[in-house]
Amino acid sequence: MSNYRIEKDTMGEVQVPVDALYGAQTQRSIENFKIAQDINRMPKEIIRAFAYLKKAAAITNFEAGVLPKEKMELISSVCDEILEGKLDQYFPLVVWQTGSGTQSNMNVNEVVAYRGHVMAGGQLTDKEKTLHPNDDVNKSQSSNDTFPTAMHIAAYKMLVEVTIPGIEKLRNTLAAKSRQFMNIVKIGRTHFMDATPLTVGQEFSGYVSQLDHGLRAIKNTLPHLSELALGGTAVGTGINTPAGYSENVAKHIAALTGLPFVTAENKFEALAAHDAIVESHGALKTVAVSLMKIANDIRMLASGPRSGIGELFIPDNEPGSSIMPGKVNPTQCEALTMIAAQVMGNDVAINIGGSMGHFELNVFKPMMIYNFLHSARLIGDGCVSFNDKCAEGIEAIEANIKKHVDNSLMLVTSLNTKIGYYKAAEIAQKAHKEGTTLKEMAVKLGYVTPEEFDQWVIPANMVGELK
Amino acid sequence: MSNYRIEKDTMGEVQVPVDALYGAQTQRSIENFKIAQDINRMPKEIIRAFAYLKKAAAITNFEAGVLPKEKMELISSVCDEILEGKLDQYFPLVVWQTGSGTQSNMNVNEVVAYRGHVMAGGQLTDKEKTLHPNDDVNKSQSSNDTFPTAMHIAAYKMLVEVTIPGIEKLRNTLAAKSRQFMNIVKIGRTHFMDATPLTVGQEFSGYVSQLDHGLRAIKNTLPHLSELALGGTAVGTGINTPAGYSENVAKHIAALTGLPFVTAENKFEALAAHDAIVESHGALKTVAVSLMKIANDIRMLASGPRSGIGELFIPDNEPGSSIMPGKVNPTQCEALTMIAAQVMGNDVAINIGGSMGHFELNVFKPMMIYNFLHSARLIGDGCVSFNDKCAEGIEAIEANIKKHVDNSLMLVTSLNTKIGYYKAAEIAQKAHKEGTTLKEMAVKLGYVTPEEFDQWVIPANMVGELK
Amino acid sequence: MSNYRIEKDTMGEVQVPVDALYGAQTQRSIENFKIAQDINRMPKEIIRAFAYLKKAAAITNFEAGVLPKEKMELISSVCDEILEGKLDQYFPLVVWQTGSGTQSNMNVNEVVAYRGHVMAGGQLTDKEKTLHPNDDVNKSQSSNDTFPTAMHIAAYKMLVEVTIPGIEKLRNTLAAKSRQFMNIVKIGRTHFMDATPLTVGQEFSGYVSQLDHGLRAIKNTLPHLSELALGGTAVGTGINTPAGYSENVAKHIAALTGLPFVTAENKFEALAAHDAIVESHGALKTVAVSLMKIANDIRMLASGPRSGIGELFIPDNEPGSSIMPGKVNPTQCEALTMIAAQVMGNDVAINIGGSMGHFELNVFKPMMIYNFLHSARLIGDGCVSFNDKCAEGIEAIEANIKKHVDNSLMLVTSLNTKIGYYKAAEIAQKAHKEGTTLKEMAVKLGYVTPEEFDQWVIPANMVGELK
Amino acid sequence: MSNYRIEKDTMGEVQVPVDALYGAQTQRSIENFKIAQDINRMPKEIIRAFAYLKKAAAITNFEAGVLPKEKMELISSVCDEILEGKLDQYFPLVVWQTGSGTQSNMNVNEVVAYRGHVMAGGQLTDKEKTLHPNDDVNKSQSSNDTFPTAMHIAAYKMLVEVTIPGIEKLRNTLAAKSRQFMNIVKIGRTHFMDATPLTVGQEFSGYVSQLDHGLRAIKNTLPHLSELALGGTAVGTGINTPAGYSENVAKHIAALTGLPFVTAENKFEALAAHDAIVESHGALKTVAVSLMKIANDIRMLASGPRSGIGELFIPDNEPGSSIMPGKVNPTQCEALTMIAAQVMGNDVAINIGGSMGHFELNVFKPMMIYNFLHSARLIGDGCVSFNDKCAEGIEAIEANIKKHVDNSLMLVTSLNTKIGYYKAAEIAQKAHKEGTTLKEMAVKLGYVTPEEFDQWVIPANMVGELK
Repeated sequence: MSNYRIEKDTMGEVQVPVDALYGAQTQRSIENFKIAQDINRMPKEIIRAFAYLKKAAAITNFEAGVLPKEKMELISSVCDEILEGKLDQYFPLVVWQTGSGTQSNMNVNEVVAYRGHVMAGGQLTDKEKTLHPNDDVNKSQSSNDTFPTAMHIAAYKMLVEVTIPGIEKLRNTLAAKSRQFMNIVKIGRTHFMDATPLTVGQEFSGYVSQLDHGLRAIKNTLPHLSELALGGTAVGTGINTPAGYSENVAKHIAALTGLPFVTAENKFEALAAHDAIVESHGALKTVAVSLMKIANDIRMLASGPRSGIGELFIPDNEPGSSIMPGKVNPTQCEALTMIAAQVMGNDVAINIGGSMGHFELNVFKPMMIYNFLHSARLIGDGCVSFNDKCAEGIEAIEANIKKHVDNSLMLVTSLNTKIGYYKAAEIAQKAHKEGTTLKEMAVKLGYVTPEEFDQWVIPANMVGELK
Repeated sequence: MSNYRIEKDTMGEVQVPVDALYGAQTQRSIENFKIAQDINRMPKEIIRAFAYLKKAAAITNFEAGVLPKEKMELISSVCDEILEGKLDQYFPLVVWQTGSGTQSNMNVNEVVAYRGHVMAGGQLTDKEKTLHPNDDVNKSQSSNDTFPTAMHIAAYKMLVEVTIPGIEKLRNTLAAKSRQFMNIVKIGRTHFMDATPLTVGQEFSGYVSQLDHGLRAIKNTLPHLSELALGGTAVGTGINTPAGYSENVAKHIAALTGLPFVTAENKFEALAAHDAIVESHGALKTVAVSLMKIANDIRMLASGPRSGIGELFIPDNEPGSSIMPGKVNPTQCEALTMIAAQVMGNDVAINIGGSMGHFELNVFKPMMIYNFLHSARLIGDGCVSFNDKCAEGIEAIEANIKKHVDNSLMLVTSLNTKIGYYKAAEIAQKAHKEGTTLKEMAVKLGYVTPEEFDQWVIPANMVGELK
Repeated sequence: MSNYRIEKDTMGEVQVPVDALYGAQTQRSIENFKIAQDINRMPKEIIRAFAYLKKAAAITNFEAGVLPKEKMELISSVCDEILEGKLDQYFPLVVWQTGSGTQSNMNVNEVVAYRGHVMAGGQLTDKEKTLHPNDDVNKSQSSNDTFPTAMHIAAYKMLVEVTIPGIEKLRNTLAAKSRQFMNIVKIGRTHFMDATPLTVGQEFSGYVSQLDHGLRAIKNTLPHLSELALGGTAVGTGINTPAGYSENVAKHIAALTGLPFVTAENKFEALAAHDAIVESHGALKTVAVSLMKIANDIRMLASGPRSGIGELFIPDNEPGSSIMPGKVNPTQCEALTMIAAQVMGNDVAINIGGSMGHFELNVFKPMMIYNFLHSARLIGDGCVSFNDKCAEGIEAIEANIKKHVDNSLMLVTSLNTKIGYYKAAEIAQKAHKEGTTLKEMAVKLGYVTPEEFDQWVIPANMVGELK
Repeated sequence: MSNYRIEKDTMGEVQVPVDALYGAQTQRSIENFKIAQDINRMPKEIIRAFAYLKKAAAITNFEAGVLPKEKMELISSVCDEILEGKLDQYFPLVVWQTGSGTQSNMNVNEVVAYRGHVMAGGQLTDKEKTLHPNDDVNKSQSSNDTFPTAMHIAAYKMLVEVTIPGIEKLRNTLAAKSRQFMNIVKIGRTHFMDATPLTVGQEFSGYVSQLDHGLRAIKNTLPHLSELALGGTAVGTGINTPAGYSENVAKHIAALTGLPFVTAENKFEALAAHDAIVESHGALKTVAVSLMKIANDIRMLASGPRSGIGELFIPDNEPGSSIMPGKVNPTQCEALTMIAAQVMGNDVAINIGGSMGHFELNVFKPMMIYNFLHSARLIGDGCVSFNDKCAEGIEAIEANIKKHVDNSLMLVTSLNTKIGYYKAAEIAQKAHKEGTTLKEMAVKLGYVTPEEFDQWVIPANMVGELK
């Protein structure tokens, strides 16, 4: 007995694995695009997004009177199975296919049609099927409007379900740490050099503020992402769609996903450009930039234990070295900074793809959404991992912190307003050269009395108002 | 007579050109940073921004009772001269200096102090001067808060004065062209291949929509840019500032510039990170991505004159070739696409710089703002140039457009809903193979009558509703 | 019966799946790094590379008298199984882990030790095992030198086994096409505008030359990649290695892989920086840039079929549109250009990672090699796919080509040396304006006789020498 | 008297400043491209490169019998003046012009023709001039082959005159420092955490090795850069060139510049792609990556003076803070790291431009060479500045270095081969927890005797062989 059955499309016959729920076009794509097939499948989030939109389209078509109720219900049922993850194995295509994602759209069309036919009691080998991939499942649609719609659904969902909650979780932990450490006075460092003091809590408040701004930046991009291309069909004109289709299908997608999707004001843009993806990923890379800064700071502040800065304790999660016994490393910081670098690289790939739409269609769609979802996922997962395994366990090592602040020469800055910048500089430079304390040198040079020094140079008074 | 005079700073004596209005620290920087000095001066927009902030700081200090009125007035007068461009020659420093921009801050401090002293009737060679660069001009300030404040002032001003108006000008011209061409039916092109028709005006409406979204994206970033670091001084704590200083100085800057600047909620972020620059440049690169698409489309649609697409006429501004007589090229498109590539590159430099702040200070400041201002300027100027010398003169070449749409095989798409996708495909494929018209083949295959074809396949009916 | 067994490392006890061939540290990493676990496993090429180096290290250790023969043989046997892909399921760790790759090194150490113990007849639950992950399998090694060694092995192998052969395959096809098309005269296009003629073969020879240079560029980077860090151990000093170890282990790796690996001249660089990866990926991005150009050209030359350029035929591999029947698209060009964009993005991620090594170690290792292998694989696979499914089937559409060249106004360039640039320009401009042929206008203006025109303006004479 | 004279080109009349040595096409470009005119002039290196090639072309044309001797001599004389910098003011055009650089080619043609005419005793207002910009100065040339030729000449010269010598200077200083510090044992740091020791000289040897590899990488790209497009003229076919022209003109350029230029094997590539620029800049970004690492290390090792690592002294070149008296910062490190970020950004701009050549011409030429020269200059100047003002003055602070190594817990690694990894880990962990020395804990746990410890744990014995 053969392991294959014969499927047909407009170009002719193709051998398809006998049990595969897909048809000729999916099979052609498998054979035509043998590119990194083991590692670069079309993200499952895109497949799920297609399930939402195919279901919404079927309902809209039914309501418009162009699709019978039974077909609508059949399509909806298969879409539900896809959303439950039951049919994942039938979506074998890779990112590196047609730049419009046509083949993944057809893959979904085929799976919905064939699985629907089977659901309705048919056989995969039946010549006529209950549902037709193009004429029924893809009705009132084109790859050119479905794929970008799936891009926006998948991107938006990932942002609100994974990315934003991940960042918020970390943000909240850092805010709690900021409050916890608000009164611990430490030496400031600018240019990697000792500077005037601040508190550990103030330092952490900067991280919180970065993430707050980053969250705002991401949220600012959601309205553009909420615009759906569906209804533009082939080139944006909406050919072969019933009246009111665009608005209605967007409403159904919004209802099914629970997210505020609307039909795009301009469908020509929505097919030919993906500036919403570019813009939104611009916000993601801004957050990546913030995370790089935060994770770098934390690992440097935790450096040591004996020959580094040693002002923060971070949790020991695993043995750090295969050769150096007892070594513990800031591994969560490392994962997060690697993620930040990745996101910054992904941004460039997205920019290039976004800039190269031509005429009525951008054909870098799969590459763009692949990178977008990758970044959004990495930031979300990375923040949670960093939060759970590192940030929550951060403690201040007060003994080291105190030692550093007490030794600092930059406390001299408080003397500026008393004796002027030039004399203050002289004190600091000579104390540095001769290895004395500031006070010793200040008094020795005759610029202040010991009493004045003690009254004027108080680290805790140099940190401003604590909020 | 010597060409030099001797100036001193906390490190000792330096020879300075006898008439230079700057002092020792500026001179040291000239000698210490011999890096691309002929091409990479600190942008003049930063110098002007410093003038605003120094004046605002002087007024605020005066109001707080820590600076005498005469000094405040003297500082203000010099700042006004700087803003008028009278002192440009005294700002010789390059971008590639201290990463905090300290030397440019000191350059400004020195010029204000020395020019103020001269204004007040003094000599550059006087040992004691009316104004002290650090104790007076820099009062209640640090490089660490002034330079980022200057960054935000310069960036914000460039965006609202050059970038946004430039984009808007182009957007409006494209919108007018969209209306002008709204009824000209043309062949659509997806994947560079013939597709279903749309109108030239619809195509242009996509460009307008891209720029509208881009403008919105830029404007979304203005609030973060409006936050000023000033008042944070050395590390964000505001050491050596009088009460209420941050809020007041921001108000004065807002009044002087006429722009809605406010004091940053969190000064620790404002010194240690420049996410506002990263975020805002992310919007600029989004616009660059849009411009690449638009300019590419226009030059390809104008390609020919005889062996290209030839659907658009663009103005002939100059002879196009030094060897091919009579050649005219889409040179404005080329300038604009080069600009787009530059902005995408600048974005990466900014991201890297932004990600590498450490502890209380980011020391990639001059590089970041250099790239930001470069991009903002290029987009603004580039859009105006493209608008004035290309977009305004675009005309549709209707004869070619009509020829293309009439020949198209993709008009067959309107038959999908009549005879189904598969039969429609058969018609198109056979017409292509045999070089016939669609109608001939459709009738020959017996799928439609000539009358049906004429009734069903009407390009103008395939473009949807025209707005 | 429990599904878990208890494993221990220096930090304590961990529950491990009862049949897992790995131990505590692998398990810790699974739990500590829940980041994109379904999509970003450490590339299997790295695991295989580790197998080569663990085997080579065991042999070298045995030869140096620090590892008993039986242990060496046991280690070698497990490594062989890893190389055969038999143990893939026991390497579950992700890219986003420790930046040194310590956990993947330990994962390999554990699998080798435990599988070795089982091979030797032991049980996974035995307290004492035949092989110790650290003391035996990792002997004379550190993650810090093994991971970069694995990076170079995996990168070098991918380049010579996948990337270079893929590029060469495409290069050879394009060279054959260049020869095949060498005498077909076509219109040149510069700035997307008609220019003087050349032949299709000449045009393709440019693509061949690009790939030849790209291959040379990649090969230029192999010597740096051939340098192995192994023997540097913890910080580059080679602590805990026997005499002659570095050279010998490199020789064994060279023998096992059949590739010319040598020990790195400087182990401090080899651990702390990955400039070889940066440099080599720089060559890959150069090739990506070439491929973008080539694939763009081909799809634009194949554009149409009726309203584009239409000078090249490329194979129809699949139906191109889910809505437009009969449409065929340049899908292989699209996959290849998406790949090019991805590689350019990956390059940035690698640059950032490469630039951020600190002191004795770069801790962006997994991210860097992940991107490198991704790019190298995509280019290799992408070239083969593009070659097999597109390039090999390219044909010249001579009718269209001839029509374009015959119509061209830029043939006027051959008159420059006869009548001067200015008069030639006048002919071309007037012919364009009035829609005449060049000849008609040239004669009408009285600059040449019809006979002179025919003698001087011969497209085939304008293409130079054909090689 | 008017300030303008009238000039003509093939498109008509233009007003030109009365004394300007350029003509209509230069003037048109000034008016057509009002884009960043104050900051982005075409780099002077390109203008100089044009002078070499125009002179070489004139000589070659003369030798081929197509240009009279007097014209050749006149052209040569003007080119010499350009090379001496005497005519710089007459090259006002910006980067953001035609993407082929046609206007800068014509600018040079016009200046050579008009200045030549004046040299020969003529007036700028003469209707007929001794030299014609197109027919004489541009003879046997096109912008399409001259501009890329100028790109390669300028790039190659910058690399060998500025970039490579700058890197070599720094490399040699670092090598001297490496030798100087070769016996100073210090604590190693991996993951920012204390690791086993090495010497300061070993650490520096890694930097030297990075730069040696970087220099090799740059030099590997010179052969591709040495290939000149000249002779390809309009589209690569060499139309309108005399026999042997390509080879001869390359020889003359080689002779005039003293650099090993040759004619490009394939002129079609040479016009349509700039992979040589992409490839060579790939090497520059590799060096940028190295410099980022080196400068980061040095500033972190010099951090403090009291609350940082403090193992290196770097020169104090200027006061570091406008508010913190006596502060000194690693300003040269900051300039160099900003440069590194800029070069990484420039790389992306170049990649994008390089990837977007179409058909017979890449029209991102000015942008590409602008970025290339910028990077090459910045690296060259930056290395010299860093060398002269920082690297040469680096000293080891031996007291701090000794303190760190003596305290380190990672010296325990030498016990691995004596007592095994697990027991060694136990010692380190407990010593860390209890704040004891390693020796105290090792003895307390009973794993070694005091005598064994002293004999086995000797930092100087842990650094391997010193070269």
